[in-house]
Amino acid sequence: MAVYTHIGAEELAALIAEFDVGALISAKGIAEGVSNSNWLVETSGRDEGHGPGGTRFILTMYEQRTAIEDLPYFLSLLDHLAARGCPVPRTIHDSAGRLYRLREGKALALIEFLPGLSVSEPTPAQARAVGAALAQIHAAAADFPATRANSMDLAEWRRLLDACGQDGLSRIDPDLAGLVWRELDYVGINWPRDLPRSVVHADLFPDNVLLRGDAVGGLIDFYFACNDVAAYDVAVTHAAWCFDDAGNVFRPKLSAALLAGYESVRPLLVDERAALPVLARGAALRFVASRAYDWLHTPEGALVTRKDPLAFARRLEFYADPANAAVFA
Amino acid sequence: MAVYTHIGAEELAALIAEFDVGALISAKGIAEGVSNSNWLVETSGRDEGHGPGGTRFILTMYEQRTAIEDLPYFLSLLDHLAARGCPVPRTIHDSAGRLYRLREGKALALIEFLPGLSVSEPTPAQARAVGAALAQIHAAAADFPATRANSMDLAEWRRLLDACGQDGLSRIDPDLAGLVWRELDYVGINWPRDLPRSVVHADLFPDNVLLRGDAVGGLIDFYFACNDVAAYDVAVTHAAWCFDDAGNVFRPKLSAALLAGYESVRPLLVDERAALPVLARGAALRFVASRAYDWLHTPEGALVTRKDPLAFARRLEFYADPANAAVFA
Repeated sequence: MAVYTHIGAEELAALIAEFDVGALISAKGIAEGVSNSNWLVETSGRDEGHGPGGTRFILTMYEQRTAIEDLPYFLSLLDHLAARGCPVPRTIHDSAGRLYRLREGKALALIEFLPGLSVSEPTPAQARAVGAALAQIHAAAADFPATRANSMDLAEWRRLLDACGQDGLSRIDPDLAGLVWRELDYVGINWPRDLPRSVVHADLFPDNVLLRGDAVGGLIDFYFACNDVAAYDVAVTHAAWCFDDAGNVFRPKLSAALLAGYESVRPLLVDERAALPVLARGAALRFVASRAYDWLHTPEGALVTRKDPLAFARRLEFYADPANAAVFA
Repeated sequence: MAVYTHIGAEELAALIAEFDVGALISAKGIAEGVSNSNWLVETSGRDEGHGPGGTRFILTMYEQRTAIEDLPYFLSLLDHLAARGCPVPRTIHDSAGRLYRLREGKALALIEFLPGLSVSEPTPAQARAVGAALAQIHAAAADFPATRANSMDLAEWRRLLDACGQDGLSRIDPDLAGLVWRELDYVGINWPRDLPRSVVHADLFPDNVLLRGDAVGGLIDFYFACNDVAAYDVAVTHAAWCFDDAGNVFRPKLSAALLAGYESVRPLLVDERAALPVLARGAALRFVASRAYDWLHTPEGALVTRKDPLAFARRLEFYADPANAAVFA
């Protein structure tokens, strides 16, 4: 979490001038996002004073992990959802209407700043609000015209885990390889077909939710968004919100509140609810795979903090344990 | 430049609640400062709406480089200068009147947020404004009651360079050791006595000045402030502002504007002006010493970006060259 690219104030001011949001007044590099550079910028506002979109924005420079060709999907999705009243930041288009600009081969986008706090220990009321906001997005995206395949699908989990190798996984934990190969087989065979699909956020961790008290002020960081099974997004969000960080402690009240919040907007079909256990095993496996890969491929002392793959291996074991079947009943 | 310490939103909210500035609404870790952790925070404001001090603040956690026992000097200096109309952020005292709070042995202070941009390529008008603001601080601090010795004095430059060793300095550049030992001797013998003393900022690089157009919106980062020769602060600021980054190109217009700006508020005495060449050699040597030490003692891949000591070795050679005597004439 850092600012990877230095841009001088004069160049930032020239960049911001392309967006018709007034003159740049302040810019602070912020330690947000795992792999992009971000600045919180303040401007004098469009026309006289405060134009639409206010005077505060996040300027994001996309570093290696985000493909430029996916940006139109991510950035126009924000516009689509915001226009339908979802709590997501709007993309500020430049004066020529473009969603992003290029600078030395890297893309830069300006996005509305939304206030709010990313909590570490959510309450049930907050989990409920997040569940409802997720369902709101699924509903509002029904007429979003663009599509994007999930680049983090089952085939990709397998590829990442293959690249870790038996040795690599065993270096992380002696039991990890056995767990992930068994689960890869299980979810591969049992993955649900024919469930309703939607635009999914696919990464709705507490870090990506800005709360104002118990209300959702903003859902952010849609850079894994894609078209996939809607209930899979519920499973990802469940895995992200309903445990302690280390994955040792399941929080049943958060789980119940998250699901109830979701269903207050979009009730799950019987088939969707029945599929949640395997979807949750897949969701946990997805983060084991990416975290294990990053764990083994991130140099010591790198700017990025490595996230513990075992925190999701523990969630995976929880979801795979028949004793916990009642969670999604 | 990074956030070294993670503090969860709930704990941040509890910390901010101790300051009587309203409830925490937003907090972003910012990539600012070389060795402290900083958050840009927004609150609901004191009492109804916007209390004095506004709703935006910088929360700083002091990591290893800033001594807690020096904080009362730094933080009350901000209050003193702000009360006298200097463009510096005020320290927000907690509800019990304290300048800072302790958390797990580390100090945390809340400081007014000032908008503005730190430029990379200042104009003469900006250099003039910075010179005037520096003189304004020197004048306003005349009745500041506290004192602090300069921990980065000549003895410390010698200690840092000794710790680099002949080998270390030569690894940076074959000619560096010869230059610094010769200059240490020269400034040691020729350092001026009996010049007017003042509170000095001692680190007024463009990074530490927030500009709004050509006007100074804020001088920040007073964590090297101390009592020392006032003209030495002019020399430090000259070395920081009047060259390109690499120290290859002297900018005579910036130099003339900076000095004229300073003298528009506080004219230099004949003795002060006469001492500027040796003070500037000392100022350049001070940054060669700290940068060379950090260069040799910062592990590869560390979070901190190492700054090139040779950028100040080149300034040192410039100031030591008799052909450039006219700069301060």
